[in-house]
Amino acid sequence: MLRRGAKIGILGGGQLGRMLAIEAARLGFSVSIFEPSENCPAAEVSNSHVVADYSDYAALEKFAKSCDIVTYEFENIPIETAKFIEKVVTLSPNSRALELTQDRLVEKQFINSLGLKTAPFFEVNNLENLRLALSQTKYPAFLKTRRMGYDGKGQVLIKQDFDLSHALSTIGNSPAVLEGAVEFEFETSIILARGHNGDVKFYSNAQNIHESGILKTSIVPASLSETQIIECQNIGKKIADALDYIGILAVELFVGEEIIVNEIAPRVHNSGHWTIEGARCSQFANHIRAICGLELGNTELSAPKIEMTNLLGDEILSIPTLLEDPNCFAHDYGKTEIKSGRKMGHVTRILAR
Amino acid sequence: MLRRGAKIGILGGGQLGRMLAIEAARLGFSVSIFEPSENCPAAEVSNSHVVADYSDYAALEKFAKSCDIVTYEFENIPIETAKFIEKVVTLSPNSRALELTQDRLVEKQFINSLGLKTAPFFEVNNLENLRLALSQTKYPAFLKTRRMGYDGKGQVLIKQDFDLSHALSTIGNSPAVLEGAVEFEFETSIILARGHNGDVKFYSNAQNIHESGILKTSIVPASLSETQIIECQNIGKKIADALDYIGILAVELFVGEEIIVNEIAPRVHNSGHWTIEGARCSQFANHIRAICGLELGNTELSAPKIEMTNLLGDEILSIPTLLEDPNCFAHDYGKTEIKSGRKMGHVTRILAR
Repeated sequence: MLRRGAKIGILGGGQLGRMLAIEAARLGFSVSIFEPSENCPAAEVSNSHVVADYSDYAALEKFAKSCDIVTYEFENIPIETAKFIEKVVTLSPNSRALELTQDRLVEKQFINSLGLKTAPFFEVNNLENLRLALSQTKYPAFLKTRRMGYDGKGQVLIKQDFDLSHALSTIGNSPAVLEGAVEFEFETSIILARGHNGDVKFYSNAQNIHESGILKTSIVPASLSETQIIECQNIGKKIADALDYIGILAVELFVGEEIIVNEIAPRVHNSGHWTIEGARCSQFANHIRAICGLELGNTELSAPKIEMTNLLGDEILSIPTLLEDPNCFAHDYGKTEIKSGRKMGHVTRILAR
Repeated sequence: MLRRGAKIGILGGGQLGRMLAIEAARLGFSVSIFEPSENCPAAEVSNSHVVADYSDYAALEKFAKSCDIVTYEFENIPIETAKFIEKVVTLSPNSRALELTQDRLVEKQFINSLGLKTAPFFEVNNLENLRLALSQTKYPAFLKTRRMGYDGKGQVLIKQDFDLSHALSTIGNSPAVLEGAVEFEFETSIILARGHNGDVKFYSNAQNIHESGILKTSIVPASLSETQIIECQNIGKKIADALDYIGILAVELFVGEEIIVNEIAPRVHNSGHWTIEGARCSQFANHIRAICGLELGNTELSAPKIEMTNLLGDEILSIPTLLEDPNCFAHDYGKTEIKSGRKMGHVTRILAR
């Protein structure tokens, strides 16, 4: 168990790091952010900020040695960086969770190896692979880069008679995966906290609505039967246990006639931002509790219904208007530059009674 | 209304400043702390920290000019400092609230001038005053310094046959007030938020239990009748309106056959720390909303019963044990040095259902 005042290092300085840093401070821990960008959302609320590249091993070693534990807030931290840190100090969650989820192909193979369902998928390295894969699946299908994809980036939807060479060049001719079409009603995510002793607590499932590949709204609770909820929880637990995972884990799932796994996020998740106001103990607080060896807090709802909406681009300027509803709670990540489609903040609306 | 990214200055860098800074950051404001101590709880989660004395006017001017608005987190900021800041930038709450509450005599006269009751009180500047005052009140009586008293400091309880010269020297022969005994069942505090447009929202009354003059526990809701609650709220509103107050105001009240005012705190208050987990929008978030010209958030309870307990001295080390209750939420203010009786943190326990 970490002593009070111990230092938690966070790889990555975005909004997830910011919300983690706040909860770490509340619990009396000191936070150091490792993030190449000078101005970043997390540094503003942290004790210190190491501005260095993820491949700067001298800086990484100094950072790791100054920390009592290190965690990460986004999954595209180079795996070499994570493994290097892990040689010096405990990395929690471990690098295996990161490694598996950084590569869509490996991730889906891992999910299937646990007996869990995914969309049909095929490895694609060239035009020939792609043609063969398309002959075995239904249209439309998604061509996605194996690595570095997030928020709808690095992917293209392939419809019938599509120019396949163009599709491949759209994703930079990178090693890819073709995902076959899946019929589903909606996407849900299950977010769980797994403690140092293997204890698992689940948050209510969120029902997620995307726009242009970016999460727009999460509604809690999701429209799921009790049986479906238990199935989602079992899937989450199976994955977390298999990874010997500590911290918050999110699993995105497609809900249709059956429940199939879309992807795993080895970190606090955008579809769990509602937990700050809508759950007794937020995903951020529970991630810190878990990695520091403290008991997990209550994950139950504190309101019957909650809706979280991302504020993209200049939607961030609507906060004063949104707050006219006294049950609306706004989060501005403090990003100076407003860019179209950029996640600038979010707003959570609770149905208090 | 303050623009996003605007800078909020906070005079004082203690735990109240720390919790205010967190909520300011959530809303996208940048925070600068003015606090003479190098290491202070608030600086850890703030953008910048001006380490200078409250009488360093050059530093104060630079600080005030760098801020879009300034607030304060403790009421013993020298009034000259507050008035100086106010000449450069908006100070919210205003310096009048600070000035009135810094002097027990002036404060009590102000309360009476609004038609509100206080304990009987007498100005005491010497032994003769003290003897006369004691002849007009009941024992035991409290001799309290007019200025700089907090957490039971600067006061002495005078019982019959007490050595009065000694009593005066105990409080450094400072200008003082003798407060006559009041019969009451318990202390309650009413905490309210008053917005830029004069809107007022009340939190549930807390029932406060002190030990050695320091708040130990606040229980919410307090054991009050609906009529008593309304009386408390009316008292709070009368005071806030009279001061043209913006922000969070706390009023401590004695509850017995009648409700009488103990003291006013022109700031977020220890007996309102429970609002972080126990109210929809905390006192800290509502203070920031009020001073920034945003609408106030919902002050209603999010759980039926809440108990907040201060962690004094080495009680702070019990956090890991306290967190074994999943409905317990701990706050460690990050103070490095553990001193007996020092407020090191607090813990809030909610009765979730």
